[in-house]
Amino acid sequence: MSQPRPGGRTARTRAAVLEATIDQLTEAGYAGLSVDAVARRAGVHKATLYRRWGTADGLLLDALTLFADRSVAMPDTGTLDGDLRDIARSALAVLTDRAGQALIRAVVSAGHDAQVAQVIRAFWTRHNTMVARVVDRAADRGELPAGTEAADVARAIGAPLYMRLLVTAEPLDTAAADQSAAVVTAAARAGVFARPAPHGAEPPM
Amino acid sequence: MSQPRPGGRTARTRAAVLEATIDQLTEAGYAGLSVDAVARRAGVHKATLYRRWGTADGLLLDALTLFADRSVAMPDTGTLDGDLRDIARSALAVLTDRAGQALIRAVVSAGHDAQVAQVIRAFWTRHNTMVARVVDRAADRGELPAGTEAADVARAIGAPLYMRLLVTAEPLDTAAADQSAAVVTAAARAGVFARPAPHGAEPPM
Repeated sequence: MSQPRPGGRTARTRAAVLEATIDQLTEAGYAGLSVDAVARRAGVHKATLYRRWGTADGLLLDALTLFADRSVAMPDTGTLDGDLRDIARSALAVLTDRAGQALIRAVVSAGHDAQVAQVIRAFWTRHNTMVARVVDRAADRGELPAGTEAADVARAIGAPLYMRLLVTAEPLDTAAADQSAAVVTAAARAGVFARPAPHGAEPPM
Repeated sequence: MSQPRPGGRTARTRAAVLEATIDQLTEAGYAGLSVDAVARRAGVHKATLYRRWGTADGLLLDALTLFADRSVAMPDTGTLDGDLRDIARSALAVLTDRAGQALIRAVVSAGHDAQVAQVIRAFWTRHNTMVARVVDRAADRGELPAGTEAADVARAIGAPLYMRLLVTAEPLDTAAADQSAAVVTAAARAGVFARPAPHGAEPPM
Protein backbone atom coordinates (compact mmCIF):
# COMPACT_ATOMS: atom_id res chain seq x y z
CA MET A 1 0.00 0.00 0.00
CA SER A 2 1.19 3.49 -0.78
CA GLN A 3 1.54 6.14 1.89
CA PRO A 4 -1.98 7.28 2.82
CA ARG A 5 -2.83 10.85 1.93
CA PRO A 6 -2.62 12.96 5.10
CA GLY A 7 -6.13 14.38 4.51
CA GLY A 8 -7.54 10.89 4.07
CA ARG A 9 -5.84 9.56 7.17
CA THR A 10 -6.89 12.58 9.19
CA ALA A 11 -10.48 12.20 8.04
CA ARG A 12 -10.44 8.49 8.88
CA THR A 13 -9.00 9.16 12.33
CA ARG A 14 -11.65 11.82 12.96
CA ALA A 15 -14.42 9.45 11.84
CA ALA A 16 -13.07 6.64 14.07
CA VAL A 17 -12.70 8.92 17.10
CA LEU A 18 -16.16 10.42 16.72
CA GLU A 19 -17.71 6.99 16.20
CA ALA A 20 -15.98 5.91 19.42
CA THR A 21 -17.38 9.04 21.09
CA ILE A 22 -20.91 8.00 20.11
CA ASP A 23 -20.27 4.42 21.30
CA GLN A 24 -18.98 5.69 24.63
CA LEU A 25 -21.97 8.02 25.06
CA THR A 26 -24.41 5.25 24.19
CA GLU A 27 -22.91 2.90 26.76
CA ALA A 28 -21.78 5.19 29.57
CA GLY A 29 -23.66 8.47 29.03
CA TYR A 30 -22.22 11.96 29.23
CA ALA A 31 -20.90 11.29 32.74
CA GLY A 32 -18.78 8.46 31.29
CA LEU A 33 -17.37 10.46 28.38
CA SER A 34 -13.61 11.02 28.79
CA VAL A 35 -10.76 11.54 26.34
CA ASP A 36 -8.97 8.47 27.71
CA ALA A 37 -12.00 6.19 27.30
CA VAL A 38 -12.58 7.36 23.73
CA ALA A 39 -8.86 6.96 22.87
CA ARG A 40 -8.89 3.36 24.12
CA ARG A 41 -12.08 2.58 22.24
CA ALA A 42 -10.87 4.16 18.96
CA GLY A 43 -7.38 2.62 19.23
CA VAL A 44 -5.83 6.09 18.82
CA HIS A 45 -3.10 7.46 21.08
CA LYS A 46 -4.63 9.74 23.66
CA ALA A 47 -2.01 12.44 22.98
CA THR A 48 -3.52 12.77 19.50
CA LEU A 49 -6.97 13.29 20.99
CA TYR A 50 -5.79 15.83 23.59
CA ARG A 51 -3.95 17.77 20.85
CA ARG A 52 -6.87 17.84 18.45
CA TRP A 53 -9.99 17.88 20.68
CA GLY A 54 -8.62 19.06 24.04
CA THR A 55 -11.44 17.80 26.27
CA ALA A 56 -14.44 15.49 26.37
CA ASP A 57 -16.60 18.51 25.53
CA GLY A 58 -14.35 19.09 22.51
CA LEU A 59 -15.20 15.58 21.35
CA LEU A 60 -18.91 16.18 21.95
CA LEU A 61 -18.74 19.47 20.04
CA ASP A 62 -17.05 17.85 17.04
CA ALA A 63 -19.43 14.88 17.08
CA LEU A 64 -22.37 17.29 17.08
CA THR A 65 -20.80 19.30 14.26
CA LEU A 66 -20.19 16.23 12.10
CA PHE A 67 -23.69 15.04 12.84
CA ALA A 68 -25.19 18.42 11.92
CA ASP A 69 -23.25 18.47 8.62
CA ARG A 70 -24.67 15.08 7.84
CA SER A 71 -28.25 15.74 8.84
CA VAL A 72 -29.10 19.19 7.49
CA ALA A 73 -30.69 18.84 4.07
CA MET A 74 -32.33 21.78 2.34
CA PRO A 75 -35.93 20.94 1.43
CA ASP A 76 -37.46 22.52 -1.66
CA THR A 77 -40.85 21.01 -2.39
CA GLY A 78 -42.39 24.27 -3.60
CA THR A 79 -44.91 24.54 -0.75
CA LEU A 80 -44.62 25.52 2.90
CA ASP A 81 -46.38 22.43 4.20
CA GLY A 82 -44.23 20.17 2.01
CA ASP A 83 -41.00 21.83 3.18
CA LEU A 84 -42.02 21.71 6.84
CA ARG A 85 -42.95 18.05 6.50
CA ASP A 86 -39.48 17.37 5.07
CA ILE A 87 -37.90 19.23 8.00
CA ALA A 88 -40.00 17.31 10.54
CA ARG A 89 -39.09 14.00 8.92
CA SER A 90 -35.39 14.97 8.95
CA ALA A 91 -35.73 15.75 12.66
CA LEU A 92 -37.42 12.37 13.11
CA ALA A 93 -34.47 10.70 11.38
CA VAL A 94 -32.07 12.43 13.78
CA LEU A 95 -34.10 11.48 16.84
CA THR A 96 -34.41 7.83 15.83
CA ASP A 97 -30.73 7.54 14.88
CA ARG A 98 -28.44 5.87 17.44
CA ALA A 99 -25.86 8.68 17.23
CA GLY A 100 -28.57 11.34 17.33
CA GLN A 101 -30.13 9.86 20.45
CA ALA A 102 -26.74 9.53 22.16
CA LEU A 103 -25.88 13.17 21.39
CA ILE A 104 -29.27 14.53 22.46
CA ARG A 105 -29.20 12.61 25.75
CA ALA A 106 -25.63 13.88 26.31
CA VAL A 107 -26.79 17.45 25.76
CA VAL A 108 -29.67 16.99 28.20
CA SER A 109 -27.46 15.33 30.83
CA ALA A 110 -24.80 18.01 30.49
CA GLY A 111 -27.46 20.49 31.62
CA HIS A 112 -26.13 23.97 32.05
CA ASP A 113 -22.47 23.35 31.18
CA ALA A 114 -21.27 26.50 29.37
CA GLN A 115 -19.28 24.72 26.65
CA VAL A 116 -22.15 22.38 25.90
CA ALA A 117 -24.53 25.36 25.74
CA GLN A 118 -22.22 26.80 23.08
CA VAL A 119 -22.37 23.52 21.14
CA ILE A 120 -26.16 23.58 21.26
CA ARG A 121 -26.31 27.16 20.05
CA ALA A 122 -24.05 26.32 17.10
CA PHE A 123 -26.24 23.32 16.24
CA TRP A 124 -29.45 25.35 16.34
CA THR A 125 -27.92 28.23 14.40
CA ARG A 126 -27.19 25.88 11.50
CA HIS A 127 -30.68 24.40 11.71
CA ASN A 128 -32.36 27.81 12.01
CA THR A 129 -30.51 29.13 8.96
CA MET A 130 -31.97 26.29 6.92
CA VAL A 131 -35.47 26.87 8.27
CA ALA A 132 -35.10 30.62 7.62
CA ARG A 133 -34.61 29.94 3.90
CA VAL A 134 -37.77 27.81 3.85
CA VAL A 135 -39.69 30.55 5.67
CA ASP A 136 -38.34 33.31 3.39
CA ARG A 137 -39.34 31.40 0.28
CA ALA A 138 -42.84 30.81 1.68
CA ALA A 139 -43.15 34.52 2.50
CA ASP A 140 -42.02 35.37 -1.07
CA ARG A 141 -44.77 33.09 -2.40
CA GLY A 142 -47.30 34.85 -0.17
CA GLU A 143 -47.88 31.74 1.96
CA LEU A 144 -46.76 33.41 5.18
CA PRO A 145 -47.06 36.86 6.73
CA ALA A 146 -43.92 39.03 6.63
CA GLY A 147 -41.81 38.95 9.78
CA THR A 148 -42.34 35.24 10.49
CA GLU A 149 -39.60 34.19 12.92
CA ALA A 150 -37.72 31.20 11.53
CA ALA A 151 -36.18 30.32 14.90
CA ASP A 152 -39.64 30.00 16.45
CA VAL A 153 -40.79 27.84 13.54
CA ALA A 154 -37.71 25.62 13.89
CA ARG A 155 -38.24 25.09 17.63
CA ALA A 156 -41.94 24.38 17.20
CA ILE A 157 -41.36 21.68 14.59
CA GLY A 158 -38.86 19.76 16.68
CA ALA A 159 -40.42 20.13 20.12
CA PRO A 160 -43.12 17.40 19.94
CA LEU A 161 -40.54 14.90 18.71
CA TYR A 162 -38.00 15.73 21.43
CA MET A 163 -40.84 15.43 23.94
CA ARG A 164 -41.67 11.91 22.71
CA LEU A 165 -38.02 10.87 22.96
CA LEU A 166 -37.18 12.44 26.30
CA VAL A 167 -40.38 12.83 28.32
CA THR A 168 -43.28 10.62 27.29
CA ALA A 169 -41.34 7.73 25.67
CA GLU A 170 -44.01 7.53 22.96
CA PRO A 171 -43.35 6.21 19.45
CA LEU A 172 -41.29 8.39 17.12
CA ASP A 173 -43.10 7.69 13.88
CA THR A 174 -43.93 9.42 10.62
CA ALA A 175 -47.43 10.26 11.85
CA ALA A 176 -45.91 12.23 14.76
CA ALA A 177 -43.55 14.11 12.43
CA ASP A 178 -46.32 14.91 9.95
CA GLN A 179 -48.64 16.14 12.68
CA SER A 180 -45.90 18.41 14.02
CA ALA A 181 -45.42 19.87 10.52
CA ALA A 182 -49.18 20.35 10.12
CA VAL A 183 -49.44 22.13 13.49
CA VAL A 184 -46.63 24.52 12.61
CA THR A 185 -47.97 25.15 9.09
CA ALA A 186 -51.40 26.10 10.46
CA ALA A 187 -49.91 28.31 13.17
CA ALA A 188 -47.45 30.00 10.79
CA ARG A 189 -50.21 30.75 8.28
CA ALA A 190 -52.31 32.21 11.09
CA GLY A 191 -49.44 34.58 11.86
CA VAL A 192 -48.56 33.17 15.29
CA PHE A 193 -44.82 33.32 14.56
CA ALA A 194 -44.90 36.83 13.05
CA ARG A 195 -43.21 39.67 14.93
CA PRO A 196 -44.02 41.93 16.64
CA ALA A 197 -45.54 39.39 19.01
CA PRO A 198 -48.56 40.41 21.09
CA HIS A 199 -46.67 39.45 24.28
CA GLY A 200 -43.04 40.06 25.13
CA ALA A 201 -40.61 42.09 23.06
CA GLU A 202 -37.60 39.88 22.35
CA PRO A 203 -35.27 41.16 19.64
CA PRO A 204 -35.13 38.93 16.55
CA MET A 205 -32.41 36.24 16.76
CA MET B 1 -49.30 19.25 73.13
CA SER B 2 -52.05 16.72 72.64
CA GLN B 3 -51.52 13.48 70.77
CA PRO B 4 -51.35 14.31 67.02
CA ARG B 5 -54.21 12.98 64.94
CA PRO B 6 -53.00 9.89 63.05
CA GLY B 7 -54.19 11.33 59.70
CA GLY B 8 -52.35 14.57 60.35
CA ARG B 9 -49.15 12.80 61.36
CA THR B 10 -49.33 10.51 58.33
CA ALA B 11 -49.86 13.47 56.03
CA ARG B 12 -46.95 15.33 57.62
CA THR B 13 -44.68 12.29 57.30
CA ARG B 14 -45.66 11.92 53.66
CA ALA B 15 -44.99 15.60 52.98
CA ALA B 16 -41.59 15.40 54.71
CA VAL B 17 -40.57 12.25 52.87
CA LEU B 18 -41.62 13.57 49.48
CA GLU B 19 -39.89 16.89 50.13
CA ALA B 20 -36.76 14.90 50.98
CA THR B 21 -37.25 12.94 47.75
CA ILE B 22 -37.23 16.21 45.77
CA ASP B 23 -34.17 17.45 47.67
CA GLN B 24 -32.33 14.20 46.97
CA LEU B 25 -33.27 14.32 43.26
CA THR B 26 -32.18 17.95 42.98
CA GLU B 27 -28.78 17.21 44.50
CA ALA B 28 -27.97 13.70 43.32
CA GLY B 29 -30.29 13.05 40.38
CA TYR B 30 -32.32 9.91 39.71
CA ALA B 31 -29.18 7.76 39.93
CA GLY B 32 -28.71 8.98 43.51
CA LEU B 33 -32.30 8.36 44.62
CA SER B 34 -32.49 5.58 47.20
CA VAL B 35 -34.89 4.79 50.05
CA ASP B 36 -32.02 4.93 52.55
CA ALA B 37 -30.82 8.35 51.40
CA VAL B 38 -34.37 9.79 51.54
CA ALA B 39 -34.97 8.25 55.00
CA ARG B 40 -31.78 9.88 56.35
CA ARG B 41 -32.67 13.22 54.82
CA ALA B 42 -36.28 13.17 56.09
CA GLY B 43 -35.32 11.91 59.56
CA VAL B 44 -37.80 9.05 59.21
CA HIS B 45 -36.96 5.42 59.97
CA LYS B 46 -36.20 3.59 56.73
CA ALA B 47 -38.51 0.69 57.72
CA THR B 48 -41.41 3.17 57.48
CA LEU B 49 -40.38 4.14 53.97
CA TYR B 50 -39.90 0.56 52.79
CA ARG B 51 -43.32 -0.38 54.20
CA ARG B 52 -45.15 2.55 52.62
CA TRP B 53 -43.25 3.24 49.39
CA GLY B 54 -41.34 0.01 48.77
CA THR B 55 -38.68 1.34 46.40
CA ALA B 56 -37.08 4.52 45.13
CA ASP B 57 -39.47 4.36 42.16
CA GLY B 58 -42.33 4.18 44.66
CA LEU B 59 -41.10 7.45 46.13
CA LEU B 60 -40.80 8.99 42.67
CA LEU B 61 -44.33 7.81 41.79
CA ASP B 62 -45.82 9.32 44.94
CA ALA B 63 -43.88 12.57 44.52
CA LEU B 64 -45.19 12.83 40.95
CA THR B 65 -48.74 12.06 42.14
CA LEU B 66 -48.63 14.69 44.89
CA PHE B 67 -47.16 17.16 42.42
CA ALA B 68 -49.86 16.41 39.84
CA ASP B 69 -52.60 16.87 42.46
CA ARG B 70 -51.12 20.23 43.30
CA SER B 71 -50.56 21.43 39.74
CA VAL B 72 -53.67 20.46 37.81
CA ALA B 73 -56.13 23.36 37.85
CA MET B 74 -59.21 23.38 35.66
CA PRO B 75 -59.28 26.52 33.51
CA ASP B 76 -62.63 27.98 32.52
CA THR B 77 -62.14 31.34 30.81
CA GLY B 78 -65.00 30.81 28.35
CA THR B 79 -62.78 30.73 25.25
CA LEU B 80 -60.45 28.11 23.77
CA ASP B 81 -57.48 30.46 23.49
CA GLY B 82 -57.98 31.66 27.07
CA ASP B 83 -58.20 28.11 28.43
CA LEU B 84 -55.15 26.95 26.46
CA ARG B 85 -53.18 29.99 27.66
CA ASP B 86 -54.07 29.04 31.25
CA ILE B 87 -52.91 25.47 30.61
CA ALA B 88 -49.63 26.64 29.06
CA ARG B 89 -48.98 28.98 31.98
CA SER B 90 -49.70 26.13 34.44
CA ALA B 91 -47.19 24.00 32.55
CA LEU B 92 -44.73 26.89 32.72
CA ALA B 93 -45.24 27.04 36.49
CA VAL B 94 -44.47 23.30 36.75
CA LEU B 95 -41.36 23.59 34.59
CA THR B 96 -39.96 26.56 36.51
CA ASP B 97 -40.70 25.00 39.90
CA ARG B 98 -37.77 23.38 41.72
CA ALA B 99 -39.73 20.20 42.44
CA GLY B 100 -41.13 20.12 38.90
CA GLN B 101 -37.68 20.39 37.37
CA ALA B 102 -36.27 17.70 39.67
CA LEU B 103 -39.11 15.32 38.79
CA ILE B 104 -38.92 15.96 35.05
CA ARG B 105 -35.16 15.46 34.98
CA ALA B 106 -35.63 12.24 37.00
CA VAL B 107 -38.16 10.99 34.46
CA VAL B 108 -35.80 11.78 31.59
CA SER B 109 -32.80 10.16 33.31
CA ALA B 110 -34.81 7.07 34.18
CA GLY B 111 -35.28 6.57 30.45
CA HIS B 112 -37.11 3.39 29.61
CA ASP B 113 -37.58 2.01 33.13
CA ALA B 114 -40.96 0.25 33.13
CA GLN B 115 -42.14 1.52 36.53
CA VAL B 116 -41.22 5.08 35.65
CA ALA B 117 -43.02 4.74 32.32
CA GLN B 118 -46.12 3.78 34.32
CA VAL B 119 -45.68 6.88 36.48
CA ILE B 120 -45.46 9.05 33.39
CA ARG B 121 -48.59 7.53 31.88
CA ALA B 122 -50.51 8.17 35.10
CA PHE B 123 -49.31 11.77 35.13
CA TRP B 124 -50.31 12.39 31.51
CA THR B 125 -53.65 10.64 31.93
CA ARG B 126 -54.57 13.14 34.65
CA HIS B 127 -53.37 16.03 32.54
CA ASN B 128 -55.12 14.77 29.39
CA THR B 129 -58.42 14.37 31.23
CA MET B 130 -58.29 18.04 32.17
CA VAL B 131 -57.39 19.10 28.62
CA ALA B 132 -60.18 16.87 27.25
CA ARG B 133 -62.76 18.86 29.23
CA VAL B 134 -61.38 22.10 27.79
CA VAL B 135 -61.49 20.64 24.27
CA ASP B 136 -65.03 19.26 24.71
CA ARG B 137 -66.33 22.60 25.92
CA ALA B 138 -64.69 24.38 22.94
CA ALA B 139 -66.26 21.84 20.56
CA ASP B 140 -69.66 22.42 22.22
CA ARG B 141 -69.23 26.16 21.61
CA GLY B 142 -68.40 25.47 17.97
CA GLU B 143 -64.80 26.68 18.35
CA LEU B 144 -63.29 23.34 17.35
CA PRO B 145 -64.10 20.59 14.86
CA ALA B 146 -65.61 17.41 16.31
CA GLY B 147 -63.15 14.61 17.00
CA THR B 148 -60.34 16.88 18.20
CA GLU B 149 -57.89 14.68 20.11
CA ALA B 150 -57.28 16.11 23.57
CA ALA B 151 -54.14 14.05 24.13
CA ASP B 152 -52.55 15.55 21.01
CA VAL B 153 -53.54 19.03 22.14
CA ALA B 154 -52.05 18.39 25.60
CA ARG B 155 -48.72 17.18 24.20
CA ALA B 156 -48.48 20.05 21.73
CA ILE B 157 -48.97 22.69 24.43
CA GLY B 158 -46.25 21.35 26.70
CA ALA B 159 -43.66 20.33 24.13
CA PRO B 160 -42.05 23.73 23.40
CA LEU B 161 -41.64 24.37 27.12
CA TYR B 162 -40.08 20.96 27.83
CA MET B 163 -37.76 21.59 24.88
CA ARG B 164 -36.59 24.90 26.38
CA LEU B 165 -35.93 23.24 29.73
CA LEU B 166 -34.24 20.08 28.51
CA VAL B 167 -32.72 20.74 25.09
CA THR B 168 -32.08 24.36 24.22
CA ALA B 169 -31.72 25.81 27.75
CA GLU B 170 -33.66 28.89 26.62
CA PRO B 171 -35.70 31.10 28.97
CA LEU B 172 -38.97 29.67 30.30
CA ASP B 173 -41.05 32.83 30.28
CA THR B 174 -44.66 33.88 29.83
CA ALA B 175 -44.03 34.82 26.20
CA ALA B 176 -42.95 31.23 25.47
CA ALA B 177 -46.05 29.81 27.19
CA ASP B 178 -48.39 32.20 25.41
CA GLN B 179 -46.83 31.46 22.02
CA SER B 180 -47.26 27.74 22.63
CA ALA B 181 -50.94 28.29 23.44
CA ALA B 182 -51.38 30.44 20.33
CA VAL B 183 -49.75 27.80 18.11
CA VAL B 184 -52.01 25.07 19.44
CA THR B 185 -55.14 27.24 19.24
CA ALA B 186 -54.47 28.02 15.57
CA ALA B 187 -53.69 24.39 14.74
CA ALA B 188 -56.72 23.05 16.65
CA ARG B 189 -59.05 25.51 14.90
CA ALA B 190 -57.60 24.44 11.55
CA GLY B 191 -58.52 20.85 12.42
CA VAL B 192 -54.97 19.49 12.68
CA PHE B 193 -55.83 17.51 15.83
CA ALA B 194 -59.12 16.12 14.51
CA ARG B 195 -59.40 12.39 13.84
CA PRO B 196 -59.35 10.61 11.48
CA ALA B 197 -55.84 11.89 10.81
CA PRO B 198 -54.62 12.10 7.22
CA HIS B 199 -51.61 9.92 8.11
CA GLY B 200 -51.45 6.93 10.42
CA ALA B 201 -54.41 5.24 12.04
CA GLU B 202 -53.81 5.22 15.78
CA PRO B 203 -56.85 4.37 17.87
CA PRO B 204 -58.03 7.25 20.09
CA MET B 205 -56.40 7.18 23.55
